[in-house]
Amino acid sequence: MNWKSEISAAANRINGYVQVTPVMESRALGLGYPVEMKLEHLQHTGSFKARGAFNTLLSSDVPDAGVVAASGGNHGAAAAYAARSLGYPAKIFVPEIAGPSKIALIEQTGADLSVVPGEYANALMGAQEHEEATGAMQIHAYDAPATVAGQGTCFAEWEAQGLQADTVLIAVGGGGLIAGALGWFQGARKIVAVEPETSCALNAALQAGEPVDVTVSGIAANALGARRIGSICFGLAQGMTSVLVSDEAIAEAQQLLWQAHRILVEPAGATALAALLSGAYQPEPGERVAVLICGGNISPNPLGA
Amino acid sequence: MNWKSEISAAANRINGYVQVTPVMESRALGLGYPVEMKLEHLQHTGSFKARGAFNTLLSSDVPDAGVVAASGGNHGAAAAYAARSLGYPAKIFVPEIAGPSKIALIEQTGADLSVVPGEYANALMGAQEHEEATGAMQIHAYDAPATVAGQGTCFAEWEAQGLQADTVLIAVGGGGLIAGALGWFQGARKIVAVEPETSCALNAALQAGEPVDVTVSGIAANALGARRIGSICFGLAQGMTSVLVSDEAIAEAQQLLWQAHRILVEPAGATALAALLSGAYQPEPGERVAVLICGGNISPNPLGA
Repeated sequence: MNWKSEISAAANRINGYVQVTPVMESRALGLGYPVEMKLEHLQHTGSFKARGAFNTLLSSDVPDAGVVAASGGNHGAAAAYAARSLGYPAKIFVPEIAGPSKIALIEQTGADLSVVPGEYANALMGAQEHEEATGAMQIHAYDAPATVAGQGTCFAEWEAQGLQADTVLIAVGGGGLIAGALGWFQGARKIVAVEPETSCALNAALQAGEPVDVTVSGIAANALGARRIGSICFGLAQGMTSVLVSDEAIAEAQQLLWQAHRILVEPAGATALAALLSGAYQPEPGERVAVLICGGNISPNPLGA
Repeated sequence: MNWKSEISAAANRINGYVQVTPVMESRALGLGYPVEMKLEHLQHTGSFKARGAFNTLLSSDVPDAGVVAASGGNHGAAAAYAARSLGYPAKIFVPEIAGPSKIALIEQTGADLSVVPGEYANALMGAQEHEEATGAMQIHAYDAPATVAGQGTCFAEWEAQGLQADTVLIAVGGGGLIAGALGWFQGARKIVAVEPETSCALNAALQAGEPVDVTVSGIAANALGARRIGSICFGLAQGMTSVLVSDEAIAEAQQLLWQAHRILVEPAGATALAALLSGAYQPEPGERVAVLICGGNISPNPLGA
């Protein structure tokens, strides 16, 4: 697959449907060096997932049965939003750990929502059964070429906005976003995968030499809690740098983003930054670093509605 | 005063001390037209006030007694932050309505803080007494040339970032920020002043033909509740468009910024947008509009710390 051209095509396809998200450089994080950030949590439905969802729908013949998606919450909200924007019915499966904010976000789109016990993998089973029973088209959360190409547009956009960094740190769940980064940058910049110690499907796969099942838990599980890394991501990730961070480090990064910049994010959105704050990734002298802020769907809603 | 050159000089002076804040264009606000936004609430200490505070300190001989500021909260936090950054002692007076988040923010800088009963005007009296008693240098919240020139750098920066708008909507308290905008744009773009119905010192002054005292209350009073518009602002504001918004419209704008973009701001930060949502300001067909998001110091702290 020529990812660079797939991602360029996706960027043209979804232009106007997704938000061009702002970028900034911070020297206020107490690190002694500047950090470029892309505020992708300001994307429609609060995460990068809208990119992959729109790219999937805009490059497909959607059947009358509409679309179906399984999600920890963010992908479901994005799929439901994209489906509504384009006039398709949507059925979304989420696990209970999606939490009230993400569930409310999906309900607001008018999608048909099923909340299932357990974790993301259980929601995926529900979506697959629905797909088989109805003929609805599944929008995969991370392990499909159209999804990966859509997420990759985030990095094409960032380069067009003047990204300087030698190294880009990205939080990983199922690997759709980081696969998009690897596909776009093609080694031109170093990509660092950051996962919670409690949900680390990519790290486990890199150690095992193949995708393996992991258990998932912790404060970012409803966004990063994939039980097994996607095969597209795994194929692109060989030899890459992978680091782990504790839940405490994630919570500290979340606090710092609010204290230093009034950026309020969910734990997954602070996970990449946590690798710098905790020292899990230590840049070399002069190495310029960037962090993707990937999701903002914190629970409960801070305005109480 | 040649405001354009004063503001250019201020921008050079404070470069590196303040955050270059990101900009974005939103089509997700349900208005049927795009809105450019500058996310100035991501500035150090959560509002544009850091610009005026740094410009004042960096253009002054600060006495051994240090600096003193009166503030509804945001200016006090900015003055305390700037003073600490530059190694000066700071004494800050705020009214009780500043609220726990802003008071905590000032305390975190290590400044000497006095919380006084009443509103901003009462804090200003305390600061003036302290200035006379100690010889400390006052950093005025809005009615001083160095403050206005500092706030004006926000608009110089926005133009350099590619601002397209014909019309820029700005929330007004004492008028330092909008004076900076009027001084920078010099009529090249239309500026619309937006005030809460419950705190509208500029609107009252424009109607009376001179600055007059108003009563202040409402949800944005701790940021926009100046009892009398600054004389610099009043001098620049002749003939400008001034609109009022209700507290309900401000609260709705605050909710929409969170729902549509995960931008969490205090009521003052949503006030300019409220003018578009409520129809208090209705752009002509084809008129391109921009909104400055000026402050994010919401109370309580959404992360509970």
